[in-house]
Amino acid sequence: MAMNKGEKAEGRDNKGLTVKKNENFSEWYTEVVQKAGLADYAPIKGFMIIRPNAYKIWEKIQNYFNSVLKEEKIDNAYFPLLIPESFFKKEAEHASGFAPELAYIEGKEEGERLALRPTSETIMYDSYSKWIRSWRDLPLKINQWCNVLRWEVKQTKPFVRTREFLWQEGHCVFEDEKGADENMMEMAEEYRKLFEEYLAIPVLLGRKSRMETFAGALRTTTLEALMPDGKALQMGTSHNLGQGFAKSFGISFKGKDEKEHIPWQTSWGFSTRLIGALIMVHGDDKGLVLPPRIAENKIAIVPIVFSESKDKVMGKAVKIKKILEKYNPILDDREGYSAGWKFSEWEMKGIPIRIEVGPKEAEKRHFIVVRRDTGKKEEVSEKNLSMRVEAILEQIQKEMLGRARDFLDSRIDSAKDMRELKEKLAKGKIVKAYMIDDEKVEKEIKNEAGGATSRIIEVSEREGVCIKSGRKTRTVAYFAKAY
Amino acid sequence: MAMNKGEKAEGRDNKGLTVKKNENFSEWYTEVVQKAGLADYAPIKGFMIIRPNAYKIWEKIQNYFNSVLKEEKIDNAYFPLLIPESFFKKEAEHASGFAPELAYIEGKEEGERLALRPTSETIMYDSYSKWIRSWRDLPLKINQWCNVLRWEVKQTKPFVRTREFLWQEGHCVFEDEKGADENMMEMAEEYRKLFEEYLAIPVLLGRKSRMETFAGALRTTTLEALMPDGKALQMGTSHNLGQGFAKSFGISFKGKDEKEHIPWQTSWGFSTRLIGALIMVHGDDKGLVLPPRIAENKIAIVPIVFSESKDKVMGKAVKIKKILEKYNPILDDREGYSAGWKFSEWEMKGIPIRIEVGPKEAEKRHFIVVRRDTGKKEEVSEKNLSMRVEAILEQIQKEMLGRARDFLDSRIDSAKDMRELKEKLAKGKIVKAYMIDDEKVEKEIKNEAGGATSRIIEVSEREGVCIKSGRKTRTVAYFAKAY
Repeated sequence: MAMNKGEKAEGRDNKGLTVKKNENFSEWYTEVVQKAGLADYAPIKGFMIIRPNAYKIWEKIQNYFNSVLKEEKIDNAYFPLLIPESFFKKEAEHASGFAPELAYIEGKEEGERLALRPTSETIMYDSYSKWIRSWRDLPLKINQWCNVLRWEVKQTKPFVRTREFLWQEGHCVFEDEKGADENMMEMAEEYRKLFEEYLAIPVLLGRKSRMETFAGALRTTTLEALMPDGKALQMGTSHNLGQGFAKSFGISFKGKDEKEHIPWQTSWGFSTRLIGALIMVHGDDKGLVLPPRIAENKIAIVPIVFSESKDKVMGKAVKIKKILEKYNPILDDREGYSAGWKFSEWEMKGIPIRIEVGPKEAEKRHFIVVRRDTGKKEEVSEKNLSMRVEAILEQIQKEMLGRARDFLDSRIDSAKDMRELKEKLAKGKIVKAYMIDDEKVEKEIKNEAGGATSRIIEVSEREGVCIKSGRKTRTVAYFAKAY
Repeated sequence: MAMNKGEKAEGRDNKGLTVKKNENFSEWYTEVVQKAGLADYAPIKGFMIIRPNAYKIWEKIQNYFNSVLKEEKIDNAYFPLLIPESFFKKEAEHASGFAPELAYIEGKEEGERLALRPTSETIMYDSYSKWIRSWRDLPLKINQWCNVLRWEVKQTKPFVRTREFLWQEGHCVFEDEKGADENMMEMAEEYRKLFEEYLAIPVLLGRKSRMETFAGALRTTTLEALMPDGKALQMGTSHNLGQGFAKSFGISFKGKDEKEHIPWQTSWGFSTRLIGALIMVHGDDKGLVLPPRIAENKIAIVPIVFSESKDKVMGKAVKIKKILEKYNPILDDREGYSAGWKFSEWEMKGIPIRIEVGPKEAEKRHFIVVRRDTGKKEEVSEKNLSMRVEAILEQIQKEMLGRARDFLDSRIDSAKDMRELKEKLAKGKIVKAYMIDDEKVEKEIKNEAGGATSRIIEVSEREGVCIKSGRKTRTVAYFAKAY
């Protein structure tokens, strides 16, 4: 694509970041979000505007994930935004989990109050109860892409926590527990692939403790990433809902044995929060850094123009753009901006590769190719350009994941007691420790450890002593504060 | 794709339609919507569930239109669902146009009431006023795909009129009137292309009268299709908003002349209503009929299985599926359903082509290819299959549009006075008549003609006499009742 003039809006005022990532992480984040044209604060508290540069990332994620859904024979559909209040009351745990965050419509109720969906289990399963009659109707596998509203009282942060966000929620129904468990794990593995192979964000994949299990679920599988400030960020979750919702909503099917059975259900979702993780994990003091696979435009071509050689340079830049068409390059042919200013602009926006074309380069048919992630420059001949760009993009993708993985690995530590747990949490570590899987015990740890919770739990081969209750257990929890 | 078991849900109970299209159009529509698995009524009045078979159509429309947006350098973004009440009051006409249909959030207002968006002009232009500073920021071209809510009091109908629907709304800003007019017309032409070339629905493209112009717009261009019951259906609109919103929301830019100017704006949109038009225009007594270009699965392969030749037939069916891969064929390999039952099923769902593979066909390598739209059968050899299918799909697409156009053309008539207007409207015609472009006059006609309104207006070369006011005018209106 050529320059879209609309993009200038955020560009012109861009004077680079005023805060360094490791000096004030929170302010740095806010600046990148604004200066890279990713989001803007909405006129209503806790809401945001997703600007084109961020929406492109979301579309890339959607396109990739839609191909996964197709592969898995999961169909997209769309259920209503509004949910009758009574639906929330049918599944008790789910109801109490979401009650504080619900927003209702004013005065339109015909008999009862109408809530804006915070998630769609209830309204979807009401339909499922009508659609499912026999084993032939199973598995039923449906996903929807939509907006949801959760009236958060916590401090909001663009992408990471907002009162409205975009997401996908998958809701499947199976004949038995095995089907549901398999689907829960399959989708969690698909999420891992998306997060690691596309977003270059390594995750810990594991089970949630009882306290952290989704409201109404039997078990929750989660994918957790570590942010540079030592906080964990939940990237996606996949639940085996058991038979609870089915019982509450009256979903049953006639099996091959001609008897009525209660099916098993799953739900799984990720949201625009992923964009927040992408910014935090990869961004640097020059702005956003996009992994190539998730960048709509993988290359920015910047001509370095002097009046006497203008035609030659521009002609060459256009030719390069053509050669590299499949990477959807941006040719920054705007007038009235210096090359240096343009360099900063595309660095701010995280475009993986910059190619500089000056009079000398046009002459010699050698171009300067600059990596966004490392700043490393190399000269590439026109002949080798396409091949070399491909290789560099792959290298960037791989190395971004590698660096993020090294960081995650370096931050995993373990603790034998509460004192050590708190000490290591304070250093921004994810801390492994034995803990019995009990809500009361975990709440005590949370209170004592400044809000840290278990992000995942694992079953260890060896038995150990719970750091809080002192009881013997094989459950190991990974503790961290979380977004 | 192979059969998704979830699809059986709506299939098993399908005993064909009980109503004929030309006997009870409205009931026929309701049956097709339900039996083809397109939509379901939601538990809240006026809302619907868009089921996978319909959502696939919407995704096809989205994919196609996203490629148009890219071509036109229009970026997708996402603005909040909730809009402060005060925003609606800034543009007086817009405010009064939407006031009756607004729904508000209960008790969450921080200072003022929050409405659910019925359309996003106001919240987007609030942002535009911050983003636009200079001529360099223009044109600004943004689109969003989202849900909107309009608390209709009229009778609702799935897809055609629901309180929540999905749509796209484009909002562009230009330096001058010419830019805005050009964009309005360009997008209307793109809409025409989508409706005619993809949905095979011919439209009348023209200007709206004053009475029918969008609330807050300077001029509205509309695209109107005629349904079989003689009612018009507005398929999409494209507005030149003039400078009114810009003035109300404080959008201005510094021109090349270094002076402040007020820009010109456009907005344009179409919605899931298109799916309703598709059903009504093309459907028949066997169910939905999809134009090939908008069908996710263009072919249904139905093996006709007898136990002694099962392997051979199934092997051949799989082979055909492979040959025709690019048409994304469904191979209906379900057991326990007769071939005839399967024929009806895929006819109900509107799949453009059915291919029958029986033992004889597998032997002779000749297959029966059946057109959904005409029911015409032909034998095609395996060798010619791919080529012939391509040709048949093109022919179906072309002939579906041709038939719809013939119908539209046959229903356009003209009237010299009110009596003739009413007479011809009663016959389900779109009736051309002279009318001065005046709200009061048009309202009188509407009252007298049982609710018919002008769908488009044109300027005629010859002067005539307004059928209501008796005044001379060159404005010709096309009257019809409308959905």
